[in-house]
Amino acid sequence: MKFILTVQCIDRPGIIAEVASAISHTGGNILGFSQHSATDVGVFLSRIRFEVAESFSINEFKVFFESVAHQFGMSWQLFPEDQKLRVAILVSKTSHTLYELLLKHQDGQLQCEFPVIISNHPDLAAVATQFHIPFYQVDPGKGKQAYEADICKILDDYHVDLVVLARYMQILSKEFTDRWHYKVINIHHGFLPAFMGAKPYHQAWYKGVKLIGATAHFANENLDQGPIIAQDVVHVNDTMSISEFIQRGQDVERKVLFEAVKLFLEHRIFVIEGRTFILN
Amino acid sequence: MKFILTVQCIDRPGIIAEVASAISHTGGNILGFSQHSATDVGVFLSRIRFEVAESFSINEFKVFFESVAHQFGMSWQLFPEDQKLRVAILVSKTSHTLYELLLKHQDGQLQCEFPVIISNHPDLAAVATQFHIPFYQVDPGKGKQAYEADICKILDDYHVDLVVLARYMQILSKEFTDRWHYKVINIHHGFLPAFMGAKPYHQAWYKGVKLIGATAHFANENLDQGPIIAQDVVHVNDTMSISEFIQRGQDVERKVLFEAVKLFLEHRIFVIEGRTFILN
Amino acid sequence: MKFILTVQCIDRPGIIAEVASAISHTGGNILGFSQHSATDVGVFLSRIRFEVAESFSINEFKVFFESVAHQFGMSWQLFPEDQKLRVAILVSKTSHTLYELLLKHQDGQLQCEFPVIISNHPDLAAVATQFHIPFYQVDPGKGKQAYEADICKILDDYHVDLVVLARYMQILSKEFTDRWHYKVINIHHGFLPAFMGAKPYHQAWYKGVKLIGATAHFANENLDQGPIIAQDVVHVNDTMSISEFIQRGQDVERKVLFEAVKLFLEHRIFVIEGRTFILN
Amino acid sequence: MKFILTVQCIDRPGIIAEVASAISHTGGNILGFSQHSATDVGVFLSRIRFEVAESFSINEFKVFFESVAHQFGMSWQLFPEDQKLRVAILVSKTSHTLYELLLKHQDGQLQCEFPVIISNHPDLAAVATQFHIPFYQVDPGKGKQAYEADICKILDDYHVDLVVLARYMQILSKEFTDRWHYKVINIHHGFLPAFMGAKPYHQAWYKGVKLIGATAHFANENLDQGPIIAQDVVHVNDTMSISEFIQRGQDVERKVLFEAVKLFLEHRIFVIEGRTFILN
Repeated sequence: MKFILTVQCIDRPGIIAEVASAISHTGGNILGFSQHSATDVGVFLSRIRFEVAESFSINEFKVFFESVAHQFGMSWQLFPEDQKLRVAILVSKTSHTLYELLLKHQDGQLQCEFPVIISNHPDLAAVATQFHIPFYQVDPGKGKQAYEADICKILDDYHVDLVVLARYMQILSKEFTDRWHYKVINIHHGFLPAFMGAKPYHQAWYKGVKLIGATAHFANENLDQGPIIAQDVVHVNDTMSISEFIQRGQDVERKVLFEAVKLFLEHRIFVIEGRTFILN
Repeated sequence: MKFILTVQCIDRPGIIAEVASAISHTGGNILGFSQHSATDVGVFLSRIRFEVAESFSINEFKVFFESVAHQFGMSWQLFPEDQKLRVAILVSKTSHTLYELLLKHQDGQLQCEFPVIISNHPDLAAVATQFHIPFYQVDPGKGKQAYEADICKILDDYHVDLVVLARYMQILSKEFTDRWHYKVINIHHGFLPAFMGAKPYHQAWYKGVKLIGATAHFANENLDQGPIIAQDVVHVNDTMSISEFIQRGQDVERKVLFEAVKLFLEHRIFVIEGRTFILN
Repeated sequence: MKFILTVQCIDRPGIIAEVASAISHTGGNILGFSQHSATDVGVFLSRIRFEVAESFSINEFKVFFESVAHQFGMSWQLFPEDQKLRVAILVSKTSHTLYELLLKHQDGQLQCEFPVIISNHPDLAAVATQFHIPFYQVDPGKGKQAYEADICKILDDYHVDLVVLARYMQILSKEFTDRWHYKVINIHHGFLPAFMGAKPYHQAWYKGVKLIGATAHFANENLDQGPIIAQDVVHVNDTMSISEFIQRGQDVERKVLFEAVKLFLEHRIFVIEGRTFILN
Repeated sequence: MKFILTVQCIDRPGIIAEVASAISHTGGNILGFSQHSATDVGVFLSRIRFEVAESFSINEFKVFFESVAHQFGMSWQLFPEDQKLRVAILVSKTSHTLYELLLKHQDGQLQCEFPVIISNHPDLAAVATQFHIPFYQVDPGKGKQAYEADICKILDDYHVDLVVLARYMQILSKEFTDRWHYKVINIHHGFLPAFMGAKPYHQAWYKGVKLIGATAHFANENLDQGPIIAQDVVHVNDTMSISEFIQRGQDVERKVLFEAVKLFLEHRIFVIEGRTFILN
């Protein structure tokens, strides 16, 4: 059986030796150890993948490791590698990022479950049906508070661990993003923080930009401003129409959102003071 | 002998046939014809490369072509392909973009002359000497007007056609950029319009961005805001230091500035309503 | 109504003027004119997009243009822009390139019809059903000649214009590729001509390569050796497993195959002496 | 003071704990720990960067660590981070990779010394002089054995640690590459193993390839076949001339060679059974 252990604490000498010894001591064999010291903030981050024998006891490990963690003031989490997080996808009308997640999942590239798809429009119900996933339509017209309460109820009913906004075109309230702190991943077309606001592709096109990009980030109450998880761009040229800009941009959007979700599911994303660190 | 003809006018039927016929009529053989109709603004753009026989008369061509141009309300320019524009390079302290231009020129990849290098610091005089180019140090301390007058005098003395700001760290006045309208190319590290203002790499690093970019553009009085000529990015990761960000960024800067200067020298850049169109 | 005209002939002075005049003369308005002179082989290539008034007669155009064509020894073709080519997709077991074509088509990014999907395995029948496309399973076990005859009959029955091998894992006979000369597009994982033969990803992985690529090309009897249409790569690193190599490679495969099919549908691909020229 | 420790051994449980403990025990503070288990060959690889107090004794560390190493059958090496390896550059006539190395070094991006430049042609002597580096011209005309003996003598005289072939156009003998096993880095234009032999750019151009690449690798007696260190590509299009292909390719060559040399100087390259593993 395999586990992922994530550790975060104030940096100081001797952490790696203690953590690695604790894993060895409890019968674990480290398969991958990655680590970063964020020297400007003095923080130590680590992600350790290890396997254990049949006789391994999670509870014993937790008791033992907590004594190490206490000594260093660590926050830490332990995840069985085969545990599948439950991910809700929120969509509006465009399907490219939704399909990307569902197809990559079908190909075995995303270790999670997609128990539910939620939308403020009926358009993508057929896609949900194709992949045999329950589809809920919620109504923003009933007022933000009631509307978000409906979403929260569905997320609770389905025991959701992560919310992915796959081109979901509604701003979420601070209450919502606080409740789901660093558990909501959004994809933003165009660059952040460039071209904020409406119709970024149009802004970009009229500006004569030569690159179109997308950014996946944790959502906070300032839409398009949370910690950045993944980014990419594609070259465009001046003879393309706005719709070609959008098409090119969609290819980047789906790529970047997939990457961000995969990084989350693999427990590779750390956030310190609003800045992400991705460990490989 | 070979020529580049650039043409710009209100789009309407029959332009290509008339232009191509005029070239044929005067004894030219078209080697390359590129064209774009910017439909949103109704503008026709074209760049034609053609060769002529010994007996070709530029003056006769100009007279003949002007009659076609008049009929369509064209602006047009004719450049002998072997005519080398005279390009002044303005620098401050960092040498990576300066070296790139000089080395690419030495390799025969930039069809121009570099008659003069101007700086507000003495640091790069040795590089100018290496490449046997006169180096002038000007003094911003004497006041912007007098200082820019010194620069303008040098540009005039050396019959300069294009000014390249190769990491030149001074804002130019509106008077200067108006005088050299679409004749000054600047390189901006970080993205435009993102991270404007001081220390963009530091801003990017603290934001946790995953891409570092550079934009070459025509300079106007709003530094870093003129029409975009070329852009590119490079991926960075969260374990890099700020100085590694800057190093990676410098590689993009030199690449993008070289591209922009090359596009200019090949007469491929058209500007309409503040937006560039690059014809291949 | 809009048309694409493609022209190919021995290069000589005056072609552009004659072609553009012919279009003007018959009432056409050129929207886009792209051209290339392949100087090493002395061949002129051009793709012209033009629109015509209601009164335009295709037959009159053809008669008129043929007189120009005759004079220059041109081969030429005229395609109504809204004419949708009929494209058959051949697949085996993997779905990523199939889904890419179907989803891009659904998004309006491929101007064609997909009247039929053919496979030597039953696995992807469900995908065909999802998209309401007839699915035929053919049996290589009956002998290559009989098997290919079955495929040819289906292609004829469905009036197919282009055959796309979307990770179709059977070598086609010379008879087949001759019959469908430059009408069969294949995608090859790994680089051409590198790592030919079986299991290129495994070969690449054991060699320690840092890039994984894909090439779309016209199929001929030497599998993986026809004229190249599109290529791309993605960076990989040494800590990835072979299955991660394959996953990364699949993303490049679907991108490159989509590009190649789109270029074909837009009549942008010219082949001269076994080498493609893509006009924009 | 800072050190880089590299470790390689048969993989088994407990290595990380022992290595990290040994460093802690001798007063070291780990700044960066990267590790990879190459599961297909059962090999553990690690690169550890650590700092030590004034009182640290290298000799004590070596004695202590050797006892750990012995227990696990490790090969290991310890490098003071500020120790500058001595790198000889071998060139022929083209200067782009030579300039890249010298300029990056001048910018502080390569932690090494360049004590000597060796060439079989006089062309680049002026560049060596610009950067104040001794330049030796050797004569292949005197026979391979005598010629390589001359080179070896220079390398010995200058106490060279690494040999970089910066577009050096001579094949080295098996004796030479054995003597400098995994200490000679070569750059190969075009792809490996594609387009082997003469004029790869010409081969690529006539094949209609859409990408041009470069590979940096350790040299062995089969030129262009040693373990791969770094690779990259750039897109090209069909309207480019061969000389434009070569220019684009040169940009990739200099980038990739710089990367490879930097990885070597930072002790990040491990080779197992002819395959490199790069640790970050």
